[in-house]
Amino acid sequence: MSVYVIGHKSPDTDSVTAAIAYAALMKAKGEDYVPAVSGKLNPESEMVLKQFGFATPELLTDATGKKIALVDHSDLTQAPDNLNAGEVVAVVDHHKIGDVTTNQPIFFFNMPVGCTGTVLKILYDMEGVKVEPKVAGLMLAAILSDTVNFKSPTTTDADKKAVKELAAIAGVTDTEGLFMEMLKAKSAVAGVPAMDLLHRDYKDFDMNGKKVGVGQLELATLDQVADMRDALYNAMKEQKGTERHSVLLMLTDVVKEGTDLMVISDDPALIEGAFGDKLDGVSMWIDGMMSRKKQTVPNLQKAFGC
Amino acid sequence: MSVYVIGHKSPDTDSVTAAIAYAALMKAKGEDYVPAVSGKLNPESEMVLKQFGFATPELLTDATGKKIALVDHSDLTQAPDNLNAGEVVAVVDHHKIGDVTTNQPIFFFNMPVGCTGTVLKILYDMEGVKVEPKVAGLMLAAILSDTVNFKSPTTTDADKKAVKELAAIAGVTDTEGLFMEMLKAKSAVAGVPAMDLLHRDYKDFDMNGKKVGVGQLELATLDQVADMRDALYNAMKEQKGTERHSVLLMLTDVVKEGTDLMVISDDPALIEGAFGDKLDGVSMWIDGMMSRKKQTVPNLQKAFGC
Repeated sequence: MSVYVIGHKSPDTDSVTAAIAYAALMKAKGEDYVPAVSGKLNPESEMVLKQFGFATPELLTDATGKKIALVDHSDLTQAPDNLNAGEVVAVVDHHKIGDVTTNQPIFFFNMPVGCTGTVLKILYDMEGVKVEPKVAGLMLAAILSDTVNFKSPTTTDADKKAVKELAAIAGVTDTEGLFMEMLKAKSAVAGVPAMDLLHRDYKDFDMNGKKVGVGQLELATLDQVADMRDALYNAMKEQKGTERHSVLLMLTDVVKEGTDLMVISDDPALIEGAFGDKLDGVSMWIDGMMSRKKQTVPNLQKAFGC
Repeated sequence: MSVYVIGHKSPDTDSVTAAIAYAALMKAKGEDYVPAVSGKLNPESEMVLKQFGFATPELLTDATGKKIALVDHSDLTQAPDNLNAGEVVAVVDHHKIGDVTTNQPIFFFNMPVGCTGTVLKILYDMEGVKVEPKVAGLMLAAILSDTVNFKSPTTTDADKKAVKELAAIAGVTDTEGLFMEMLKAKSAVAGVPAMDLLHRDYKDFDMNGKKVGVGQLELATLDQVADMRDALYNAMKEQKGTERHSVLLMLTDVVKEGTDLMVISDDPALIEGAFGDKLDGVSMWIDGMMSRKKQTVPNLQKAFGC
């Protein structure tokens, strides 16, 4: 019976490429391992697979009766449905230890590094198996994506070492260029309706009884949305309606490492106070702001007296 | 803050030596790791530590406020008390995946092999750290113990490879001799009261309304109890009293891989039928019988109509 290697739900580039790379390692060892995905690929992952010549892995959403190797997660909620009606035979990951348990001893390899791709590179070395150049390209792309080209605080020396070695194997001389291509794919906005862009990564929060919406668009450069600012503002206005106190849209420039924060609010001064700056028209540039979860929301909560 | 490396409760040789060996590996990498034990050492572990020149690791029963690396288990019930009031920073194991979870990514390395000592040998190699000869002796002893000198069905090629390499590092030319020394320590009976020997590893079972007690003594040779058979039988008789239907004592010869089964019963023919053999006096030799859980009890249950 084949073992299906699968990453988490709402797959990202690490989950998709790790499934392919781990299946390839096990195939090289003579085992029948098949990569799979839990859902539709995002534009970045699609671009990466195309770049290195891979088709989209088979879709698998129900683990019933199947042998499963988990990559990039060890939490039941992120795993395929009915995992307990299947059999987990291996886990390769770089996250906190989740709640997946087994009845038999299995291979479980988790390291506190920036990406499963890095764990897999170490595993290939441990097993004495050469990484195929195409597969090395996938693993390389995953590490650049997960570590935001080494800018994420999760980056370790092991990630940098793996990128160096994988780039040599894959024949990629310009990893910076590869990262920018991925970022462009991820942040593609051309032809996408403004309301869809606002909702691409959007959440409503309760701020001391007031409803506040915050969306985020990760961009290679703010130029990508230069012609769309009025349309985005109109979408925000529509989203706000009378129900919400404020709607914010983070236009995050991943290269410059900052955010142009668009704001529409019943109390603009309150929002300005939250971030210690003045709006220049309908937005303000905030240097170093990258994370909604770790930067934007905590400042808003403080300003709203939560 | 030091990290305490600790095995499971009721420590065995693998748990004790793995704590020492993993702490030594991390110390070699410049980390402050200290071996610990969850309880009193068994005679085999005491002999192994003495043989290779180690003192008993520090006792640690409460994890509150401590950083903990778990070896040889990943189950909360087997871990030190209040593990959730401490912080698990690493797991190295060879069992099924247990219910220990973490809030942060950690190093978690579990392999389906016969012993944590084997996993640790692979880890030393992966890290490029040389095993100290004394520590290699401990790891070697643990693998011989856990795999019953390669006779256990849990034995893998990785265990055999590790034993070969560790024996060379430790300068142990006669691993068979080491195993026999450990077995003698484990099965020491001289000077121990017969009732204590009966209770060394004893359990009562309900067999279709009848109470049946089964004890087991693992021996290097049956000669160890040759002079004590009458005393053991009297202890069994006392244990049986009027309350129990039968009391059995498995005198298991680990080298010959069989058990001399001592029996006292209200219905000896029923017990004979359970194992398809006749009593020769008060015992019968059953070839290949090694496990109470997997062999003795299931046959009794069937005979008692459970």
